[in-house]
Amino acid sequence: MAANAQDAIMLFGDSITQGGWEDGGFGARLSHVYARKFDVLNRGLSGYNSEWAVPVFEQYFAKQHEQKHAPKIRLLTIWLGANDACIKPSPQHIPLEKYIANLKHLVDMVRSPDSAWYSPDTAIILITPPPVNTHQRRADLQARDPPKELDRLFDTTKSYADAVVKLGAGLQVPVVDIWNGLWDATGHEETALSRYLRDGLHLNAAGYSILYDLLMATIVKHVPTLDPSKLRDAIPRWDEINWDDPHPSIVKRDVQIPQ
Amino acid sequence: MAANAQDAIMLFGDSITQGGWEDGGFGARLSHVYARKFDVLNRGLSGYNSEWAVPVFEQYFAKQHEQKHAPKIRLLTIWLGANDACIKPSPQHIPLEKYIANLKHLVDMVRSPDSAWYSPDTAIILITPPPVNTHQRRADLQARDPPKELDRLFDTTKSYADAVVKLGAGLQVPVVDIWNGLWDATGHEETALSRYLRDGLHLNAAGYSILYDLLMATIVKHVPTLDPSKLRDAIPRWDEINWDDPHPSIVKRDVQIPQ
Repeated sequence: MAANAQDAIMLFGDSITQGGWEDGGFGARLSHVYARKFDVLNRGLSGYNSEWAVPVFEQYFAKQHEQKHAPKIRLLTIWLGANDACIKPSPQHIPLEKYIANLKHLVDMVRSPDSAWYSPDTAIILITPPPVNTHQRRADLQARDPPKELDRLFDTTKSYADAVVKLGAGLQVPVVDIWNGLWDATGHEETALSRYLRDGLHLNAAGYSILYDLLMATIVKHVPTLDPSKLRDAIPRWDEINWDDPHPSIVKRDVQIPQ
Repeated sequence: MAANAQDAIMLFGDSITQGGWEDGGFGARLSHVYARKFDVLNRGLSGYNSEWAVPVFEQYFAKQHEQKHAPKIRLLTIWLGANDACIKPSPQHIPLEKYIANLKHLVDMVRSPDSAWYSPDTAIILITPPPVNTHQRRADLQARDPPKELDRLFDTTKSYADAVVKLGAGLQVPVVDIWNGLWDATGHEETALSRYLRDGLHLNAAGYSILYDLLMATIVKHVPTLDPSKLRDAIPRWDEINWDDPHPSIVKRDVQIPQ
């Protein structure tokens, strides 16, 4: 890690990640809870599917020989699929098998010692695409000028989400299943998804709140070394300073508390 | 700039900066509006005064020989003084002249070619400490266990804010005068500050909203090259991709639009 940087959490995904710093968004909440510990990087790209995400990741994730200078990515969330699951003829559509192959490729880029992007210090968490409220989505698209046809189906997105859960189990990568998280919150009623989605597709603050809680629970369970309640500030708290001789006590340190 | 990083905005200050990613905070709003353009780094340190901030800045701002590897800091906000203006015997108290000398030192570290931290690509904006609502602050301190005496005075903090405005004029560094911004919003009535401060000292969402608007206006006026409406995304928008041959069109680029 460069001395002048903090280690970081990279949130990689599509518009649902990019929008995570809106009011109540999960990115803003992570930024707040990890303040003075890790920076939280927004690497969400509106409209992107997993196929287009790969060349982005190649450019935004440091290669092995660059990593000593780059902020160390301690946690990487990969949240794609909402656009892959578009139906034809959308240019965003990616077939399910190719979508899963792309996710596996992204994981392998970080986890395989043979990869130029190999980063053994990076924990990965996959996030499923959220459920679509087709009633709300259709109304949103019909209200546009010119009106558009429905571009996503409830069951198609569900099959993409299910496949991520299966992939995670196979790869032993933890998965935040926000598809079922939101679905369960509705009592299994599609129209009730409007409580958690602002337009049938993108999460509102209530939806992000459920995502945030599931993500934090996943961190605590599967990546406990990154549990924010177990970390200290990189720069000492002001009441840790020696007020009579402050400078020697104001030294950057590892946020992990020595055992 | 490292290829794998985005240029960045560094928000440097005390708890009022550290808390900027709470709901409605200015850091979260900047993170959102600069998504895919600049990362916004939280370098706020609760309780810190300008004297303790100097060694922090020495460690968190890249030196000249480190800058080619570090994210380029395009904008640095320095928002200190709320703790310096504590009255004796608070260990946070820093005399006014020393506070201003410390701010000048921080600016010089970035702007002086003789400084190890010289960074000619970094624009600087100073922010004044906000006004104190001593009624609200006293009540907050008296409610603690054990109760504490009032530690800040309305007129003292005002004198620290006035001195920042004067320093900025002398150094030709733009200043966001949130002291007067909030004071004017109250119609010049100290108790009305409770609309903008959650505890007489720290801004709530309404206070951060005024700060955000003043800061964006200052960027547009004094650092127009960083006006977010004039920037493009570092990675092309999804509708800029050549869908028939996507990879060659997905290339990271300068967020400044070529003239």
